[in-house]
Amino acid sequence: MDIALIAVIVSLVGLAIAALLYKKVTSVEIDDPTVADITQQIQDGAMAFLKAEYKYLSIFVGVVAVLLYFVTEDDGHLTSLAFLGGALASVLAGMSGMRAATAANGRTAMAAQKDGQAGALAISYNGGAVMGLSVGGLGLLGISLVAYFLGAGDAGQTNITHAAGFGMGASSIALFARVGGGIYTKAADVGADLVGKVEAGIPEDDPRNPGVIADNVGDNVGDVAGMGADIFESFVGSIIAAMVIADSSANMNADYVILPIFLGLVGYMASLVGVFSMELLKNSEPGAALRNTTFIGAGLFWVVGWFGIGFMDLDTGTEPMIAVIIGSIVGILIGLVTEYYTGIEDVFGLKTKAIPHIGQMSKTGPATNAIAGLSVGMMSTFIPIILICFGIFGANHFMMDGHTSGSAGGYMPEFGLYGIAMAAMGMLATVGVTMTVDAYGPVADNAGGIAEMSGLGKDVRDITDSLDSIGNTTAAIGKGFAIGSAALTALALFAAYSAAAGLGLDQLALSDPKVVIGLLIGGALPFVVAAMTMTSVGKAANEMVTEIRRQFKEIDGLLEGKEGVKPDSAKCVQISTDAALREMVGPGVVAIIAPVIVGFALGSPALGGLLAGSLVTGVLMALFMANAGGAWDNAKKAIEQGHIEGAEKGDAAHDAAVIGDTIGDPFKDTSGPSLNILIKLMSIVAVVIAPALTITGWL
Amino acid sequence: MDIALIAVIVSLVGLAIAALLYKKVTSVEIDDPTVADITQQIQDGAMAFLKAEYKYLSIFVGVVAVLLYFVTEDDGHLTSLAFLGGALASVLAGMSGMRAATAANGRTAMAAQKDGQAGALAISYNGGAVMGLSVGGLGLLGISLVAYFLGAGDAGQTNITHAAGFGMGASSIALFARVGGGIYTKAADVGADLVGKVEAGIPEDDPRNPGVIADNVGDNVGDVAGMGADIFESFVGSIIAAMVIADSSANMNADYVILPIFLGLVGYMASLVGVFSMELLKNSEPGAALRNTTFIGAGLFWVVGWFGIGFMDLDTGTEPMIAVIIGSIVGILIGLVTEYYTGIEDVFGLKTKAIPHIGQMSKTGPATNAIAGLSVGMMSTFIPIILICFGIFGANHFMMDGHTSGSAGGYMPEFGLYGIAMAAMGMLATVGVTMTVDAYGPVADNAGGIAEMSGLGKDVRDITDSLDSIGNTTAAIGKGFAIGSAALTALALFAAYSAAAGLGLDQLALSDPKVVIGLLIGGALPFVVAAMTMTSVGKAANEMVTEIRRQFKEIDGLLEGKEGVKPDSAKCVQISTDAALREMVGPGVVAIIAPVIVGFALGSPALGGLLAGSLVTGVLMALFMANAGGAWDNAKKAIEQGHIEGAEKGDAAHDAAVIGDTIGDPFKDTSGPSLNILIKLMSIVAVVIAPALTITGWL
Repeated sequence: MDIALIAVIVSLVGLAIAALLYKKVTSVEIDDPTVADITQQIQDGAMAFLKAEYKYLSIFVGVVAVLLYFVTEDDGHLTSLAFLGGALASVLAGMSGMRAATAANGRTAMAAQKDGQAGALAISYNGGAVMGLSVGGLGLLGISLVAYFLGAGDAGQTNITHAAGFGMGASSIALFARVGGGIYTKAADVGADLVGKVEAGIPEDDPRNPGVIADNVGDNVGDVAGMGADIFESFVGSIIAAMVIADSSANMNADYVILPIFLGLVGYMASLVGVFSMELLKNSEPGAALRNTTFIGAGLFWVVGWFGIGFMDLDTGTEPMIAVIIGSIVGILIGLVTEYYTGIEDVFGLKTKAIPHIGQMSKTGPATNAIAGLSVGMMSTFIPIILICFGIFGANHFMMDGHTSGSAGGYMPEFGLYGIAMAAMGMLATVGVTMTVDAYGPVADNAGGIAEMSGLGKDVRDITDSLDSIGNTTAAIGKGFAIGSAALTALALFAAYSAAAGLGLDQLALSDPKVVIGLLIGGALPFVVAAMTMTSVGKAANEMVTEIRRQFKEIDGLLEGKEGVKPDSAKCVQISTDAALREMVGPGVVAIIAPVIVGFALGSPALGGLLAGSLVTGVLMALFMANAGGAWDNAKKAIEQGHIEGAEKGDAAHDAAVIGDTIGDPFKDTSGPSLNILIKLMSIVAVVIAPALTITGWL
Repeated sequence: MDIALIAVIVSLVGLAIAALLYKKVTSVEIDDPTVADITQQIQDGAMAFLKAEYKYLSIFVGVVAVLLYFVTEDDGHLTSLAFLGGALASVLAGMSGMRAATAANGRTAMAAQKDGQAGALAISYNGGAVMGLSVGGLGLLGISLVAYFLGAGDAGQTNITHAAGFGMGASSIALFARVGGGIYTKAADVGADLVGKVEAGIPEDDPRNPGVIADNVGDNVGDVAGMGADIFESFVGSIIAAMVIADSSANMNADYVILPIFLGLVGYMASLVGVFSMELLKNSEPGAALRNTTFIGAGLFWVVGWFGIGFMDLDTGTEPMIAVIIGSIVGILIGLVTEYYTGIEDVFGLKTKAIPHIGQMSKTGPATNAIAGLSVGMMSTFIPIILICFGIFGANHFMMDGHTSGSAGGYMPEFGLYGIAMAAMGMLATVGVTMTVDAYGPVADNAGGIAEMSGLGKDVRDITDSLDSIGNTTAAIGKGFAIGSAALTALALFAAYSAAAGLGLDQLALSDPKVVIGLLIGGALPFVVAAMTMTSVGKAANEMVTEIRRQFKEIDGLLEGKEGVKPDSAKCVQISTDAALREMVGPGVVAIIAPVIVGFALGSPALGGLLAGSLVTGVLMALFMANAGGAWDNAKKAIEQGHIEGAEKGDAAHDAAVIGDTIGDPFKDTSGPSLNILIKLMSIVAVVIAPALTITGWL
């Protein structure tokens, strides 16, 4: 039976399981009226934002679909259709994941009160699992359908580059979701903190603060929907890249084209087992339980993949699985290095120096705190880059075995490049379970916020706090996977682009001035997009500050906590929503227009340069910004928890650390993550337009 | 007569003129004992630092010279000798320029008191001219001697890559001087400001502050010596790059090899005229006078170059001069764009938005000020990058005319790459006069500080302030030249490297995983060096803070300004000196070791990738850091000068702006400028080791 068809069936089964898990989550009753009210407000705010966002995007998607029909050479309707499918699949994954996450957070707080830690863990995990299984299932379903209808893997291969349309649809939604979600969440967070915590001196998550609901909505919009869309497009991107490379090569047979779908299928089945294993693990230590569900998924994937691949007709044998395993290991190591630079705890006995350094530098004020955070962020890029290089080297090395001057004749670089796509798959194939853990984090975080706002008491708060803190550690690994897989996926897509554009080695030479021009422009784009998104957060936060100040001033008794006086939270939700929708347009347009302009004006080699340039600075800036932001955040927490000698909550050093944390907010939650998607989106746009480009361009 | 020989003679004449100008400056008597004392302290501190630095570096230079002797293939002693010559020439230029600048600053203050503005302008300009003419003269002298002895331009061309040794010597000194000088000046500046202005509430340049002398020494060490060494190596680097490209090409005759020396010669003569024109211009408006000396130099260079080139045997005709002119224009435009993003005044009627934006964002505190400054810095990279791309495109385009498929046969990319080196020369050939203006700035600045410390009165201070402020505007153009020429020089050196390593187009392909690995590692290095230098400034500033606090506490009557009580300034000078010497080692070693390791381990294509990667992120980070720092600085000034509505000196917004300015200090004066040199030094190391590398490397 056709592998693509099996994948379609399995993903449908997985989606059905996700629906059952959603039922299970919502079956928990919320019998505290305050919890019910706040949960409803957060869910309404989040769904309202998603709907408004998708309404905007449907216009954009429609226009691009029409343009694609005309731009892409013959069979343009296939690319257009695939594009629409990719966008739709991403939207569906986002909607269902969001609905589940926002349903689960209040219920996690309730479960903590009624059933204790194990019950709360199960609910929050299942809330995340709906997102995980939706992302994995819809990704696998969509790409399998596309492959099935395009006849990939048949003896007579059709032009698989149309499948890139699916990836472009997913990537477009992802960029807008990440940028919009990132702006939403940070405008609310920064605004609520600046007026509430700093000016009015009331605690975080205090129900008097009009920005608190927007802040909690933002956690879902940014971390759940944004992260989900990001991972979704990485997952389909890595599959598509491998398929295009294999399809364009005269040396790779049809089984190489179908292999990525096979791996996605195995990974998804392994993820299902991993997710279910939580039922058995939920009574053990929660951190270990979370990690073990991931390990079970990954282990099963490796074992089944290793044996399964033997049944395929590949002249590289099991080498693709070696590349897969290298990719997984690199992802895990990047996560641990991230933890080393941004975490308070030591990593495997390695004493962290970064957080104590920033803590110390906070004592001489905000300027030295800022300098320290920025330099920690910059320094933290190096080891992950070296790890990514190891991944590239290893994947290329093993796959090239016998293809440098083998009997088949000559140098066949496509095998090595295919291996890089396999390494990306190593971080992405078990997306069903890794994404579950990623989405679990904000659910646990929100549960804590709701418990605080509803006054559920210290016992409940202790449980949600502990669930939240283990979420942070596993989230670091998740970020490592996100960044590592973005780099490798973008690189694989770059290879797919050069294959699709028919660029020979001598046409992508660094000594060609047009390639260098592309490289420089591509390198500058992540700086531009980072600047745009940071400015957007600043502007939106300013509006939020003005509104919250107004409410504290004009609503009698609000700040004093008078019985029955409530803030106008809806107004703050509206400000964040409007700002996110308005400000997400610019970066999205840049990402789609830039490759088109450079490709047509300067030719396909220059566009290749652009992709390489944006890959380099995009990955570096994403690492820099994410890690600087994480380090500032934890330096503040380290002071609060008494880890920094001579500094404590409320003193000048702590004030400086709070300022650093605020600088880091748009770094780690808006600009940094946007760059991961930027580089992938530009790459996939390039793959789609590749057949229409010329070598010389118009200039 | 041999052009190289003429260049030797002319440069010796120029150096003699520099000596006469030095005499002229020192002939002004300082009859105020306080001015004399402070001038002496600054000069002693600066010269002591330079001597200590050069002592350290002599060991380093000796070791590298020996290694070079063994690493480079046959005739290694020539590369070694050239290396020693380059280092020595850079040291001599630094010493003489520094001696003149530190002699001129106190005398400028005296002249302002005795002769008014015209006299003060002449002294400060001549003080800078010693540096300008030394840099230009020693650069031209050294490279001409090397070319003469290697027989460049003779019918039987010898292996000119040995000349790269000269560039490597100059670059090594430059990196250490920039990094050391940058750490010195910012440690003193940040330390003196944090305790003096912020904690003790005394004005800048107050004689009670123990860190003030170190701060003034730092201005010279960083801006005069550091900048001089930087420009010196760009100047010789661009000449060497063009010579190596021409020498390695079978299609370019000997006149192409000697052309860069010819252009350097014409530019130097034009600079001499420009410098002398100050005698006629000094009574006109000082800003116009400064600019006009530069314009006279540039105009003469263009005219004489255009006609002179006609006498050479070049089958491209005057095209190289078109590339030269394109380069100059790009440099000027980058300067204006820099001014647009970092200046308070409108540029050519274009309303600046960046400074008002940062000013507004300062009102909500240091965090939003920091976010605004960072985003302005990131955004400001885009247009300069596009301008650099225009420069590359234009220079390549005109030089390739007739060489893409001409009668000589086939595609000859070396002509285009040679054109890029010519564009770099467009910004660098008149270094004699542009460097004069650059060095004038810190002299005028220091003159103001000395006037303040010596209580010379408001009239004197008004003159020095106005001289200082026009220095800032022209300095922006100078920075544009520094960054633009660094980018083009590095690119030309990259081309020289690929020629020297014999890399064909297909061996520098972006689709080769090893090239990508090089690209990623190269891209990460500027982040690493930026992090190292920022951390160094933070650490050194901390030591300085502790020492100044101690003196204020332990020296009775110091803070109260008791008659006869003086701070222990020498101690602060010592702290800056020690920190600079200790901390400059790391970045210097990285820059030299990284290309060697990657080149030998991964092969020459990977090293090509490394150079390209470091070029992209190095230029971007240099622009980002320099402009963010400049913008923060001026946002603070804009508030002080009343340009920002609702904010004024001393309020919370101003406090936030001061914090932003402090974050920007290491950005603009340490890390940013270091990156310009980093990319050139790595490129030239690559050119030197190129003949010893293999395609595959050890791995």
